[in-house]
Parts: sequence; structure tokens; C-alpha cells
Amino acid sequence: MSRVYNFSAGPSCLPEEVLKECAAEMLDYNGSGQSVMEMSHRSSTYQAIIDHAESQIRKLMKVPENYKILFLQGGGSTQFAMVAENLGIHTGKAAYIQTGVWAKKAAAEAKHLGIKVDIIASSEDKNYSYIPHVEKIEGDYDYAYICFNNTIMGTHYEYIPDTGKIPLVADISSCVLSEELDVSKFGLLFAGAQKNLAPAGVTLVIIREDLITETPREGTPTMLCYKTHADNGSMYNTPPCYTIYVLGKVLDWIEKNGGAAGIHKLNVEKANYLYDYLDSSDFYHATAEKGSRSLMNVPFLTKYSTGSKDEADIAKEKEINAKFVKEAEAAGLVNLKGHRLVGGMRASIYNAMPLAGVKALVEFMKKFAEENK
Amino acid sequence: MSRVYNFSAGPSCLPEEVLKECAAEMLDYNGSGQSVMEMSHRSSTYQAIIDHAESQIRKLMKVPENYKILFLQGGGSTQFAMVAENLGIHTGKAAYIQTGVWAKKAAAEAKHLGIKVDIIASSEDKNYSYIPHVEKIEGDYDYAYICFNNTIMGTHYEYIPDTGKIPLVADISSCVLSEELDVSKFGLLFAGAQKNLAPAGVTLVIIREDLITETPREGTPTMLCYKTHADNGSMYNTPPCYTIYVLGKVLDWIEKNGGAAGIHKLNVEKANYLYDYLDSSDFYHATAEKGSRSLMNVPFLTKYSTGSKDEADIAKEKEINAKFVKEAEAAGLVNLKGHRLVGGMRASIYNAMPLAGVKALVEFMKKFAEENK
Repeated sequence: MSRVYNFSAGPSCLPEEVLKECAAEMLDYNGSGQSVMEMSHRSSTYQAIIDHAESQIRKLMKVPENYKILFLQGGGSTQFAMVAENLGIHTGKAAYIQTGVWAKKAAAEAKHLGIKVDIIASSEDKNYSYIPHVEKIEGDYDYAYICFNNTIMGTHYEYIPDTGKIPLVADISSCVLSEELDVSKFGLLFAGAQKNLAPAGVTLVIIREDLITETPREGTPTMLCYKTHADNGSMYNTPPCYTIYVLGKVLDWIEKNGGAAGIHKLNVEKANYLYDYLDSSDFYHATAEKGSRSLMNVPFLTKYSTGSKDEADIAKEKEINAKFVKEAEAAGLVNLKGHRLVGGMRASIYNAMPLAGVKALVEFMKKFAEENK
Repeated sequence: MSRVYNFSAGPSCLPEEVLKECAAEMLDYNGSGQSVMEMSHRSSTYQAIIDHAESQIRKLMKVPENYKILFLQGGGSTQFAMVAENLGIHTGKAAYIQTGVWAKKAAAEAKHLGIKVDIIASSEDKNYSYIPHVEKIEGDYDYAYICFNNTIMGTHYEYIPDTGKIPLVADISSCVLSEELDVSKFGLLFAGAQKNLAPAGVTLVIIREDLITETPREGTPTMLCYKTHADNGSMYNTPPCYTIYVLGKVLDWIEKNGGAAGIHKLNVEKANYLYDYLDSSDFYHATAEKGSRSLMNVPFLTKYSTGSKDEADIAKEKEINAKFVKEAEAAGLVNLKGHRLVGGMRASIYNAMPLAGVKALVEFMKKFAEENK
């Protein structure tokens, strides 16, 4: 068996030792005679598993006492609706900063559900290649919304906007536990787990208790009320049990690697290794502006991406990108194709990607540049 | 390692060979160098996995061409809302047959979302121990709703109500693929997968194409529109990839065991073995009435469950039930505690429970009856 380096934007690589434990425990978890897949979610054995995942989140993210931790289903796209339905209940107005596809979709969903959405800042002018600086958000908004790390565009906030008393909501799907984060600055954080935390199928929500309303917007389905899940320890109905079990193991792995601070240090080292090479290369360049760069997602173009509208140039660009992706794959470096909105290539280097993977990528890039200059 | 017989109402036992395959492929699926947990849902390898699951459902359930098969998140409880939001759009009226907790919850959710709900029949008068016979459902209803197998009460429809042109919706969470079913008699079928099909975290929906509306009720969140998922092959956002992969394996296992017809034959054999013993015993009795009995969930009481309100009698009943559950567990027969609404014990004997497990249970029951008469 030969494992590849997986640069997928998500789902993406998981720590090998976590996978090994999952395999070893598949037919018999801890002497229970059952797989965790088979276990009643109402059993004491499973309760211990979900409690462990929750307490690890609380410890590793330093979640204050007055926040609830929820494990939900439906991904970030369901959170777009839940945020609007549960938080948009006083003035019905919300401020969104538009930094890419996902922030745009979140705003569109809120609008669709009847929220008066103000796009208070946007980086659409430069294809979302930077994070606008919004020092302060003021107004009679029910909440302010940001996408903290933009998976497609490879950008990340290097600051937290000051929203005063307005609850700040952040989608941290692609950066959760990749760095330290002051949870107390936010009203609500959510993350689809399939990038940094677990297989796809569970969404982490961290919500300040005073935002868990008994009176969401009219006609909100029961399953889309945070209170439904907060009142039942994320077990109003059957949770995605196995996915939460894997999540717990990944959290243990993060802890063993120094927690959020330790993982952040490794992530900085990995990202710098790649950005330093990109910035020094005359064959490649990163698309995200300095000061807004993600540690997790690194889109880059070659010198053949000139922006030319000439058909021959476009064909050449396509050819070189396809060649890169194909040859990389043959070298065991997979999922490097860029998103169509940016073009070129994208290397997602989440927590579980080892430095060795990034070094192997850079080695390959050097060779490819030499062969195609 | 010693595996137990797991009689949980769900999540519940999975075929051992499926678990073994999952373990073996955990670090490297089919030479990809990745776990399915790590795989991009946009990769051709994963596309083949989800396509396989879908085509196996279509084949094994003989799903007609004009029905879509969807893999969603959020369980049956989310379907309660989706059914109402997407189908309750013409007259806003719906007929529900109330056969237990889950049918009641479904009706309550529809009401909560503004549907005018008619409870056209109910078996509440006898603690839901039977299925009311409703030959024909008529009226200007947008849909009629039934819970085809009632997990808690251990009842199951032995007929399909004739609804004429009214789309019939059925929750088949606890009986999906345990028997042959004429899909063409239904407008929409759904099943949380964690009983007969897969680990928890994916919901199977089979919907007739004409019921996939572009205009659900006002304010329906995008993620709760069937059209969102139907238009995107269940990949509008990241699906619960690994759970769907296990589902595909369970479907292969069902096929190897003779498909729906073959599995049904085995299920009848298993259920008869248990019911025959219960009906012949003067120590135990089944709670579900003959003619309404589930092949999947078998609640039963002992002779100490007399319905007496006397404190000493109630204490004795509790003691004997607890003793049964504890001693059964020691004998490797787990999760036999009855639901509080029925009391006593409940044996859920889903597809993956072997006949040997049912025989072991009956052996234990005989011994226990002898020791406690």
C-alpha cells in the first residue's frame, strides 16, 4: 500500500494514526463487541464518545462556559439558513462581508429567508484575492457575518472585526483548529468538519447561550432551531455517530501535536515553505494578496496564466495546468487542480498534511518549472 | 474479540463482512492511496461510489425511472419538515395516519409549518398496538402520510392505503429493504439509514419526479428543497461520503443474500421464530396485535407487566425487566431494554441480525422464564 499526499480542498487527508485506530476498532470498540457504527446513540458507551468530542472542542478551542457546542448535520449550507432563522429576529437586518463564493451564498440564503442583507464590504473588485479591512461594524444589525477562511480564493482574515454588541458570526469551516482563536469575540462559529476535523457529515457549531432563541423566525423547521439541539445535547434525533467518533480521535491527535498553538506553528511552517517558494519563483505565483493569505488553501498560477483572451494563449494555459495536475498525480500528489473561479492549481494543506507533503510538492513544482520554462 | 448480538432499535448491527471490508480499506481504498473518508467528493473515484449506491437502491427496490433517489442529511426529523414544505403547496392540507410517536411528530411538524393536518385515523386508543385499516383516502389533500413500520410500538402496515391521485408519503426508516415494496404506489419514501442500511448520518429519499417542485412553501431554506438535491445528484454540498460508501456495501450484501425478496424470507423466518415462542409462552407476550406486527421490532412484556397501579407490583415489574436486560447483556445479547412508552423489552431484529442471534435470544428467554416463574 502506498499512501498519497492529498491536497484536496475537502474532504481531505486525515491523520494516518487516526485511520489506523478506526480500522483496528472497526469490529469491536473497546471491548463492547460492537463497531461504533452499530452502537445505539442512547448507550452509555456512545454517550462517553460524544461527551469526549465535546469536551475536547471546549478544551482545545478554549470555549467559554457561556457557549454551547453542537454537532449538527447539513454542512455549512444549512448553517447559512440556521443563522438567518435564529439570529435575524429583532430588526431582521444583517451585515455581510463578501469575500468569495461561500460568503455570497450565505448572504443570498439570508436574503431568501427574508433578512434585509447589507453587503458592507466586498473584495469582488479583485476576484476576492484579498480580505477588505473593516475596522468596526455598527448599525442596528441582528448579526454581522464573515467567512473567516475562504477555501476557494485562499484568503483568511488576519483580524477580527470589532462589532461591539452586534453578534459576530463566522464560517470557520476551512480553518477551524488550524490556529488559536478567541471564541469570546464571536456570537456564533460554525465549521463543516470535512476539512480539518473529521470525515464529511458533521457540522460543529459553537453558539453563545443568549443567542439560542425560543422564538426563531416564523415557520422555522424544528430541526433548524439551535434550541432543539442545544436542549438535547445534539441528540434530539440520531446524530452522525461514527463521524463524531472520528472527530474525537482527530481532536486527540491535535492535542498530542500541541493543541491549537502547536498545530498553528506547524501550519505556519508548512504555508511559509510553499509561499516562500511561490514568491521567489518566476514560473509560479500565488493569487492571494499578502496580508490576506490562508494557511490552509494556497491557489497558484503559472506564468502561462496571463489573462490573455487570445485563444492560443488560453489553450496553452489549459494544457500546462492539466499537465501539472496529471504529472503531480503520477508523483503521488493528488487533487491539485484549481477551482474554476481562480484557475491554475490549489494546494490545500490542512492540519493533517505533513510538512513532508509540502516539501514533496515544492520539489515537484521546481522540477516541473524547469521542464516547462 | 467476541462480538455481541445487538438488538438496538437503531443504530444497530451491520453485516460483519461489511465491517471487515471497511477496516481493510480504511487506509487505501482500491489502490487510491486514500481512505474514502479523505476523498474529495468531486473525484471520479468517489463519484463511482455514490453512483453505485444509487444504482443498487434502484435495482434492489425496483425504483421506477420517474423517481429520483437522494442521499440527504438530517434524518427522518428533517424529512418531516421537507415533506410539508415541498408537498404541501396546493391546498395546504394533508392527511396523517397516527400510529405512534414518529407519525405524531411528523404531523406536529407539518402543523408547525402551517399545513392543515387532518388525523384521519389513529391507534392511540390502544397505545398504538395496531395499524388502523384505512382502505381509501380521499379529499383535497396535497399528500397523505403514513409511518410504514413503527419502531417503538413494533407495528407494520400489512397493506398500502389506496390514495388515488393523492401522493402517498411513507416513513420506511425501520423497514427499508427488509421486504419487497411497490415503490410506484408511493409519491415519496424516506428512510433514516441507521437501522437497516448504514451507520447514522444519511437519509434515503425516493421521490416521484413530478413532486420535485420549484416552488415550495414560502421561506423554505434552500437545503430543505428536494429540487436543490435532485438537480445536483445529492452533491449540492458535501454529502456524508463515508456513510454512503458503507451504505453501498450493505446494499451489495443484501443483493448477495437474495435482494429484497431473499432478505424478506430470512426476516420472516427470524420474526416467526420469536413471535411463535412469545405466543406459546405463558411468561412473555408480544405487545403488537396480530395482523399489525413488525418483522423488525418486537416489543414484549413478561407476566409481571399486569398494568397494576399497585406500587409493589410496579416495583416487581421494574425489577424483573432490569434483571432480564442485565442478564441478557451478560450473555452477549445487548440493547434489549424496551422503550419507556411500551415498557418491558424490545428486540430489534433488522436485516443484519442473523437467525442465530434470534435463536440465542429465545434460548435465553426460556432459561430466564424458567428461573423467574
